[in-house]
Amino acid sequence: MPLSEFELIERYFRRCGAVRADVRLGVGDDAALLEPGAGTTLVAAVDTLVEGVHFPPGCCAESIGHRALAVNLSDLAAMGARPAWALLALTLPAAEASWLEAFTSGFAALAEAHQVALVGGDTTHGPLVVTVTLLGQVPAGAALRRSGAAPGDALFVSGTPGDAAAGLALEQGRLAAGEHEAFLRKRFLFPTPRVALGERLRRHASACIDVSDGLLADAGKLARASGCGVELEAERLPFSAALGALGTRQARELALTGGDDYELCFAVPADALGRLEAELPAAQWGYTRIGTLCAGAAVRVRDATGELSVATAGYDHFSAPQS
Amino acid sequence: MPLSEFELIERYFRRCGAVRADVRLGVGDDAALLEPGAGTTLVAAVDTLVEGVHFPPGCCAESIGHRALAVNLSDLAAMGARPAWALLALTLPAAEASWLEAFTSGFAALAEAHQVALVGGDTTHGPLVVTVTLLGQVPAGAALRRSGAAPGDALFVSGTPGDAAAGLALEQGRLAAGEHEAFLRKRFLFPTPRVALGERLRRHASACIDVSDGLLADAGKLARASGCGVELEAERLPFSAALGALGTRQARELALTGGDDYELCFAVPADALGRLEAELPAAQWGYTRIGTLCAGAAVRVRDATGELSVATAGYDHFSAPQS
Repeated sequence: MPLSEFELIERYFRRCGAVRADVRLGVGDDAALLEPGAGTTLVAAVDTLVEGVHFPPGCCAESIGHRALAVNLSDLAAMGARPAWALLALTLPAAEASWLEAFTSGFAALAEAHQVALVGGDTTHGPLVVTVTLLGQVPAGAALRRSGAAPGDALFVSGTPGDAAAGLALEQGRLAAGEHEAFLRKRFLFPTPRVALGERLRRHASACIDVSDGLLADAGKLARASGCGVELEAERLPFSAALGALGTRQARELALTGGDDYELCFAVPADALGRLEAELPAAQWGYTRIGTLCAGAAVRVRDATGELSVATAGYDHFSAPQS
Repeated sequence: MPLSEFELIERYFRRCGAVRADVRLGVGDDAALLEPGAGTTLVAAVDTLVEGVHFPPGCCAESIGHRALAVNLSDLAAMGARPAWALLALTLPAAEASWLEAFTSGFAALAEAHQVALVGGDTTHGPLVVTVTLLGQVPAGAALRRSGAAPGDALFVSGTPGDAAAGLALEQGRLAAGEHEAFLRKRFLFPTPRVALGERLRRHASACIDVSDGLLADAGKLARASGCGVELEAERLPFSAALGALGTRQARELALTGGDDYELCFAVPADALGRLEAELPAAQWGYTRIGTLCAGAAVRVRDATGELSVATAGYDHFSAPQS
């Protein structure tokens, strides 16, 4: 017998994620009541995952629950914000208990890890589409933005971009990677949003963006928002062992143009590099310098042999929809 | 040539809705930055409209834009909150300029009327699904809830419920209503959320809910959340002239079980009825007493002949999906 919306809420969503003292009223009324802290700016992001576009049909439900929150955590990380409250709009073809259990367990585990409470939502009947709105806070005036970088600033990326795109290609049967397959699939299915790094970067970065559409495209957005160009050095790109095993050419292309990394790309003024390394050692925090902001508006990639041409400039939902 | 996501944002969403001084950073970065007022509680709601479920395929885009915001304005009205900021997650089969212009004009007109700024969003490729998250504010501790009513409280509804369900039936070719068709269709396509009434009810109501799934079902939810039963008097149901022209039997059924009204159903203690009428005259504010909260848990409808049986208890997305 199908579950009613009321039963769905009671069984899966009423207690999901962290318990927070600043939630005056959570799931179950017409709206949630929340108490932002004094002296903070509210930070709000929304992202949607569509079956067949953002994940393959039949993708594991635990991953969908994890990723639906992770992509928003990554947006808040890019602002230097601390996440707090989520709302979940879930459109489902059918209310299947096993799917819902796996979905909510993926969502809840990540929510608890980041002290996020699920405070509201809407469950509707239709094609599988998951939209999460995430609210968080940042000290007043302290948020990071895409704008703010200047020519001469160093450009960094966290983690090892390109893994997730390789993992998606594996999920879709477009790639083989032998012993590295499990690692790469996991990097697509369960990305790690860099929330703690984002919060700490408030003291160091001049600009920040999360890498969701491909490193080259997103570095270009940061540069454009800052009124700069950017030059990436291909030889500095940090590859995981698994990505590197695909060979330099493919690893570079995936790292530069693959999507779904949910890493942070950030700029740091040259005179602040010493303090960055002293307070957030790169070896401990897992980020790498990959280039430099420059005057002008060009987005370039170079290696020792000169300027490289890059096949595509990243993922754009309407010009080049995946399907 | 298809529009890129960047062009979509620039052309349709960057300037949409009201301009507000408390928006530090709106559409175009990884997240929005907002400044809630001191001494206020944040109120957050999310609702999704799915093509073929919440509106008929091919429904006018201006209506979809209006309704996607209206359903959330109605949720905030039910909490007694003042709306402020919206985020729009729009999943679209194709980025057609004429559709987007009509959609955003419907959304923007209602947003401007209620001083709501569009501060963020996500546009994705897929089946037509629209999710709006609406944030607003209420003085600390002053929000209305579904709980709070007690046996003996009078139950009211705003407006004329049932019109929207008749309008949907007209849109779907399941009804004929002669000269009244335009009025009824408009009540479905362009519902009026009762935001100003909701704010004023904070001084009077013991509980409030918005009527979206049918008056009987939603009155029952208010009663259950308040630990009461409820008795509705069918002869008190306020019909529009257009609904009344369908005859008492059909008008009652639509008013009690039809969805999509976006009216407010609220309870007022017996000793506060004089003050309610003095400060918010029913004739001016357009609400009607329809019943009384009572001890127990039963939800009943009576007329002069005795207890009525009502065909269905309202709309539930998973037990009885429309399609």
